[in-house]
Order: sequence, then structure tokens, then C-alpha cells
Amino acid sequence: MATGQIEVEVSDLWLLNPRQLQLPFELKEFHKVKESLRMEYRYLYLRQSLMQNNLRLRSRMVMKMREFLTNKHDFVEVETPTLFRRTPGGAKEFLVPTRDPGKFYTLPQSPQQFKQLLMVGAIDRYFQIARCYRDEGAKPDRQPEFTQVDIEMSFVTQEGIISLIEGLLSSSWPEEKLTFQVPFPRMTYHQAMSLYGTDKPDTRLSWTIKDVKEIFSEEIPPAPVIQGLRIPKGGKYISSKEVDDIVKFSKQGFSANLLATKVKALTSTSKLFSKHLFEKHHKKLVAMLELEEEDILFLSFGNQYEPHMALGKVRLKCADKMEEKGVTLRNKEKMHFLWIQDFPLFLPREDGSEGLESAHHPFTAPHPEDQALLYTCPHKARSQHYDLVLNGQEIGGGSIRIHSAQLQRYVLNNILKEDSTQLEHLLTALDSGCPPHGGIALGLDRLMAIVCQTESIRDVIAFPKSHEGRDLMSGAPTYVSQDELDIYHIFVKK
Amino acid sequence: MATGQIEVEVSDLWLLNPRQLQLPFELKEFHKVKESLRMEYRYLYLRQSLMQNNLRLRSRMVMKMREFLTNKHDFVEVETPTLFRRTPGGAKEFLVPTRDPGKFYTLPQSPQQFKQLLMVGAIDRYFQIARCYRDEGAKPDRQPEFTQVDIEMSFVTQEGIISLIEGLLSSSWPEEKLTFQVPFPRMTYHQAMSLYGTDKPDTRLSWTIKDVKEIFSEEIPPAPVIQGLRIPKGGKYISSKEVDDIVKFSKQGFSANLLATKVKALTSTSKLFSKHLFEKHHKKLVAMLELEEEDILFLSFGNQYEPHMALGKVRLKCADKMEEKGVTLRNKEKMHFLWIQDFPLFLPREDGSEGLESAHHPFTAPHPEDQALLYTCPHKARSQHYDLVLNGQEIGGGSIRIHSAQLQRYVLNNILKEDSTQLEHLLTALDSGCPPHGGIALGLDRLMAIVCQTESIRDVIAFPKSHEGRDLMSGAPTYVSQDELDIYHIFVKK
Repeated sequence: MATGQIEVEVSDLWLLNPRQLQLPFELKEFHKVKESLRMEYRYLYLRQSLMQNNLRLRSRMVMKMREFLTNKHDFVEVETPTLFRRTPGGAKEFLVPTRDPGKFYTLPQSPQQFKQLLMVGAIDRYFQIARCYRDEGAKPDRQPEFTQVDIEMSFVTQEGIISLIEGLLSSSWPEEKLTFQVPFPRMTYHQAMSLYGTDKPDTRLSWTIKDVKEIFSEEIPPAPVIQGLRIPKGGKYISSKEVDDIVKFSKQGFSANLLATKVKALTSTSKLFSKHLFEKHHKKLVAMLELEEEDILFLSFGNQYEPHMALGKVRLKCADKMEEKGVTLRNKEKMHFLWIQDFPLFLPREDGSEGLESAHHPFTAPHPEDQALLYTCPHKARSQHYDLVLNGQEIGGGSIRIHSAQLQRYVLNNILKEDSTQLEHLLTALDSGCPPHGGIALGLDRLMAIVCQTESIRDVIAFPKSHEGRDLMSGAPTYVSQDELDIYHIFVKK
Repeated sequence: MATGQIEVEVSDLWLLNPRQLQLPFELKEFHKVKESLRMEYRYLYLRQSLMQNNLRLRSRMVMKMREFLTNKHDFVEVETPTLFRRTPGGAKEFLVPTRDPGKFYTLPQSPQQFKQLLMVGAIDRYFQIARCYRDEGAKPDRQPEFTQVDIEMSFVTQEGIISLIEGLLSSSWPEEKLTFQVPFPRMTYHQAMSLYGTDKPDTRLSWTIKDVKEIFSEEIPPAPVIQGLRIPKGGKYISSKEVDDIVKFSKQGFSANLLATKVKALTSTSKLFSKHLFEKHHKKLVAMLELEEEDILFLSFGNQYEPHMALGKVRLKCADKMEEKGVTLRNKEKMHFLWIQDFPLFLPREDGSEGLESAHHPFTAPHPEDQALLYTCPHKARSQHYDLVLNGQEIGGGSIRIHSAQLQRYVLNNILKEDSTQLEHLLTALDSGCPPHGGIALGLDRLMAIVCQTESIRDVIAFPKSHEGRDLMSGAPTYVSQDELDIYHIFVKK
């Protein structure tokens, strides 16, 4: 037709399958329906153009990744087992009972051990679009099974992995959405924590945290760290009540103090902030933070990175709040990639007990300059771990691994105080002439959600589970009979 | 060098990682080492050129399959969940306990339900290189997890799937090994059973079973079926003792009788066979089976396909035996593909109880000509199932599916007498306007083993499990502590 539309003249019409079902909602109004209903009738939701586009784009993009890795860079895709053994510290691994009484497989969180064993086995460029499993109980926007682009190479450095991934993403990114350039910016862990209060900064926001200790050194002497954050024009959009809520939310989990004030006039302050402190130092604050009227000023003081982390949360919360009110701060189409490097190799144990635990995993190699520290001050050693951050979300992480069995044994036994017999197969493998190697894993679901400009990874997965890990369509998980459990020699506790 | 070899002049040599380990065997002599040791040190075995070639070829071939499906035929690769719910009759599904007391996921044997739901969801050309799970306990050359090339299409017929797969295999097959042509020959289930005594005949062997009932009709009146098989020149290579063993082995599980004789002279017979019978009928037998001296003649009589099936086993056993003795009967490089069609839709229950069960699975559509039989003589109905056989091994199978909820419900409730509430989500989905659809799954491990000309699928899998389902390298499966079981509210029976 003149309009460009096509008119079809029907001669025969066969009805192949009538719709018997009274549909649970109007297909056109799907977005208005609550998510649990969309999950129950997932096959209907899949007909929406949103899901059609997302799933088809995912398939195309992964295909381009494969073409880049296999055709251009000689990688070999190897399928590794998902029925494996419990790994030390693998508390989040699902169990799979076997017919051998008391013995269980586990579903691994990643092919980490297998890919390192492949390096020993001379598959020197390995990748896999790998299904991984993590049992975290109910958690929003996490799935019990997820997919990662898993890569490992022999004889490689951090630079080698970084440039490979930059090439991989540029070449597989949908052309019409290709708005970024390589190489990606880089930042050390220390810089990220100091400027943004997080190891995954959203650099689409230019706001940064500033050290203001010198101003307040007299007033708050016991606090070794005092940091300030200016939210430009925040006072115009965020009410005092909302500022209070942001402070409460951002302090959670930290012992750092957090104060806020709306900068009404450059010489006076609102009741939210210590009048005395502000008035005394307002000139220095204005100069140092470039404060303007209608800004909000947040100050935090405490130990180590705690003030930064509290302000890092403030930073994102304020941005969310201002965007809710119509201010555009972060463009969804902009892709701000960022490499974070020089992470600490070990951290104090999260459960508060004495000793160190791996910041990432026990196979991460120390920074070449810090190798000696392992034997003296291991908590000061940096690692050869790197994270890839996109718009404030961690979409990948990897490291150069330890290839020396001796060093690996030392880390396991002497620093982590773990039982290395559980990893004897890996240690023996390293001892049989394992090449230096390293790799990375990209979280495909999260990456696709950003590419598809959707908030939830459930929009890029054909059949996702609910927050509670349930398949609302089929009803999984379900009860099974004792007969079926008998095969596996198990009982359920009443 | 003049020889074509390269001489390298070394200026610096860095030892990146010394071999500390006393290797458990000489690498060059790996093939002499027993398999359990090769599995324990799998990473060393992977360095062998055999495994290097097999894994790299597998990666390349799968990549070509993906290129064919996505780039040439607009298929969409969709990842489907592996944490699912118990399916009716899914007795071989592994269980995965959850934090919800008494509730379990299962690891599905195939993405069958999901791919049908994708058809309802308008992903009209789906494929996936899918990880599947089957708990069969200890079985030789089976793996608890395996991979299939899983395909489903809407608005497709058997012809459509068959020609797609023929194109897929021709275009992905390693060029230097491409010795076959398309289209592949086809055979009905009835023909395959009658001529070869199996639904997966190895047609590299030309020997076929012949109906000889008319010769013996007087002697063995109660046997409705009497079949003969001639093994040309078998007498020259197979001893009488071995013939005895073959008869014993081949009769197992059948009530059919099985007799054998070496044809020493065309007018007399060895003691193995009823002298009387042979002498009385030798002229007719020689004429009908084209018997020659030094042949072996096997006869079987019984019911239905039992005589054929016994002779089908004889056929393969005799070929094995003759090949052991140096006769070349089946060339490993020859690829004899064969489609088998027109399977029965239902079979008598295997456990001997009254009633019918699905010959393949309950979603298989009936043959269009036999649809009316469902309501009168369902046991006589043929299905729209098809198997792809390669060199006597089933490497794939699929069908056109039932797309009418009404028919699906009738099959489940009235013919199979199963509880259809377990499949209510699928029935509801069919009722919401599901297009006619069908698909297929190819067993990738078995296919790759044939392509790589190896007997065992363990030679085309990087980290296979032993017959007993154990990972001899890591020791999986392992015992876990009661603390770890407590999370899942289970305990192990002592």
C-alpha cells in the first residue's frame, strides 16, 4: 500500500490451533501485570517484543563472542563438568545426592578448577559459555543458575587479558549501540575506594569524594579519616526528610559517622548539620569542595575506607532520588567501562575471627612487586586480580593465577589456614609443569541486561526463577516421595 | 634445515615452572596405562595429541553447527534452566535439595518441555547445545551429564527437520572426513526390525535377516515367526565354541529359540544344528539364503520381532568376532547414516503391567494416517518420531509434537493413565494458541566419538566420569558434613 504497509488477500484460512484458554490478561497490557503473573505465564510474556528482542539479541551477541574467540583468536571451547566435588569454602554450592550412600556431587559456582587444569593439559586458550550455580537462598535479582563467559589463557599477563576482553566486547557489541571506545579507563582499587567509596564506581556520575581531614583536624581528632561529598543542586530536588533517610540507609553496616547539610547560603547552614562546624569552616569547605548554593554537603568520619563507603552509598542514593524527580544524571545509552586493578590479595575474615581470607579466591597470584610481603605482611600484599565495571556494576573479574604448587600450598596452609588436601589434585597438577596462566569470567546475564537497557536480569533470561528461587510456571521445586529419596539414601527432617 | 625441520638457537632460557612431580607414567607410553590412572591424571592425558585433536575438533565442529543454525537459518540459541521440577516418569532425574524443607529441584534429562514452551512463546527456531543429566547408576560408556544439540521449530514437518539435520551435518562435518552424501537413506521401523533385528542397524554390514518360515512351516508350527541369517565365510573365522557363545549371548532376554550351524558342505551339517532339519531342507535353504560353503547359518523362531532381535545380536557379534580375527567388514571411515521412521507410538509397558507406555515420550504426535487409531487401537498407531542412526548407533531422535491440548490430555489421561496435573503448565500453554511444531536432539558426545573414530565417549570429553560416575581426579562425589546437610533439611540413612 502507499503507506508502505502490506495488504494480504486471503484465499484460504486454516486454523491450526484455536486459543481455548481465557488468557489471564490482555497481551497488549502485559507491562501493567504484576511480575508473578508474567512469570506464571512466561510463554505468553515471551511473545512480547521486549522479550523477543532481548533473547534474539543475546543469541546474536554470544555468537559474535564465539566468532571472535574461536575464529579470530584460536580459542577452544571446552565443556567442563557441573557434577563436581565440594570445594573448600564452597558454602553456596548446591548438593546433588548420589546412589552411593552419603556421597554428594556439588554444582560448582564456576569452572575455576577445571579451567586451570586445562592449562596444565595444554589447552592453552580455553573458553566456555558456562552454566554456573550458586545457592544464596532468596536474593533479589540473583538466579540460582547463571551464565558466565569463562576464559583462561596460558603465558598471559594482565595486559593480555584486558586487551582481549576489550576486543571481545567491541567486536560483539550490537553495532547500533556501540558508543564506547577502547582501551577502557583504569583505576586502582585504592583510587576507586577513595574517590567513589566503592570498587565498582558508576563513573557516569562525575561526583567524587574529597578528603577534608585537614579542615576538621582540630574538632574530630579521634577520627583518622574525614571525607566530604558535594551533591550539586541536590538541595533543589531532595527534601530534608529524604536526606535523613539517605543518611540512615547509607550508615547501615558502618561505624563511620555521617552528617549532611543543605547549603542554603554559603555562610549558613540548615538544622541538619552542626551549625558551629559549618560556620567556623565554611570558607575552607566552599573553597575545597567548590560548594554552591542549593548543594547538599555530606561529611563522614571514621576508620579506613568506612567514611568513603558510606559516602559512596550516599552518592548513588542521591542520584537515584534526583533522577526520580526528573533530573537526567546518567544516560542509559552511555557505556562507562572501567578496569579496577591492584586489589588487596587478602582481607580480614568477614566472620570477625582472627586471620585472613582471600579477597577473591585462593588461586589469585600476588602482585609481582608484593610477592615478598606474603612472608612478612600478607595483609598488605596486592593481587593480580582485575574487575571490569560497567556503569557501576561489576560485569567481570579475573586474575593471573598462582602456577607454582609451592606458593599455592603456602597460601592455603600458612596464610588461609585451610585444609589443602581437598585441593591435592590441583596442587599435583601445578607440580607437573603447569604454565603461568590467567583468565577472566564475564557475567553474561548482567551484561545482557545492561546491553538491553533493562533493570532486571530476568528480562534477558527465557525462564528465570523468582526471588525465592521458584519457577512460578512449573512450580519447581516440588515435594518428592520417600520412594524417590530412598534411591539416594536420604530423609527429609520433619 | 634441509630436512624441513627448524633449528632454534637459544640465547636465553627461563624455566617458568619446574616439574616437581615424579610423573606416574611416561607420557609417551600413555596408551599402555590403565584407564583409571589416565583418569586420575586427566590433565596429563589431555596433553596427548589424541585428546588435543579430539577436543579441538569438537570445538570447531560445534562452532560450525552454530554458524549453520544462526547465520544461515536464523535460529536463536536460548539457554533453558537445568534446575527444574520432577517430570512424570522421570525416574532417572538427579535431585537437588533446596532450603525449602522437603522440596527438590531435578536436573532434567533434556530441555523437552522448555523447548515446546519456547514454541508457544514465538521463538520459532530454537536451538541449544544443552547440558543434560541422567542418573542411571553405573553403566558403561554412559555419563551422568552429557550434551545434546537440541533443536525445535514451529510450522515444520518431518521432512523439514530431516533436511535441516542433513544440511547441519554436511556443513559442520570436518572437510577431510566428509565421505557421505545427502539425503540419507530412510527405512521404516518395521523394515529395520525385519531386516536387521534392531531399530539402529549398522548398514555398513550388508548381511540381512530373511524370513524362512515357508521352509519350516511343517516342523515348527507353533512358532509364528521363523527367521534365518547367513554369515558369509563365518565358519572360516569363528570356532564352534565361539558360535555356542554367540548363541548363548544373543538369546539372553528373549524367549525365541536360536540354532546355528556351520555349513561344511552344502548337503550336510555340523553337530550344532539339527541334522534332520538341515538335510531335509538344504536345497531350499541354499536357494533362499544363497548359502555357500564355510558360511554359518543361524535360525531363530519365536514371536513378533524376537527372532529378528536375537539374530540382530548374532549379526553384530559375528562381525565383531571376524574383525577381531583380521577380516575388515566395517570401515571406520565410512559413515552410514540412516533415518528410521514410522515407529510405534506406544508399546506394552516394560514392567509387564497392563497398559501402554510411550515408545519415546508422551509429547510425540501420532502419524497423520493413524490418528483415528488412538481412539480404537492405540497400540497399532504409528508415531511421527524419527531416529538418526550412524554406523549402527543412534545419534539422534525427535518428533513432530502434539500441539493440541485436547489430544495431549487424551493421551496422558486415557491412554497412558498418567496424572496430567503434573503437566498442567504445558497443557495450559498448548491451549493458548501453540503453533504446530517439532524438533530433534543429537547426542553430541556419541556423534563426536564416531567423528573422532574412537570407541569411547570419554575420549571426546575433557573431564569424564568413570563407569561408576566418579571423578577419579578430584574424588567426586564426596561425603559432606551434617552441618552442610542441615541447610537442606536432610540427613543420610545409616
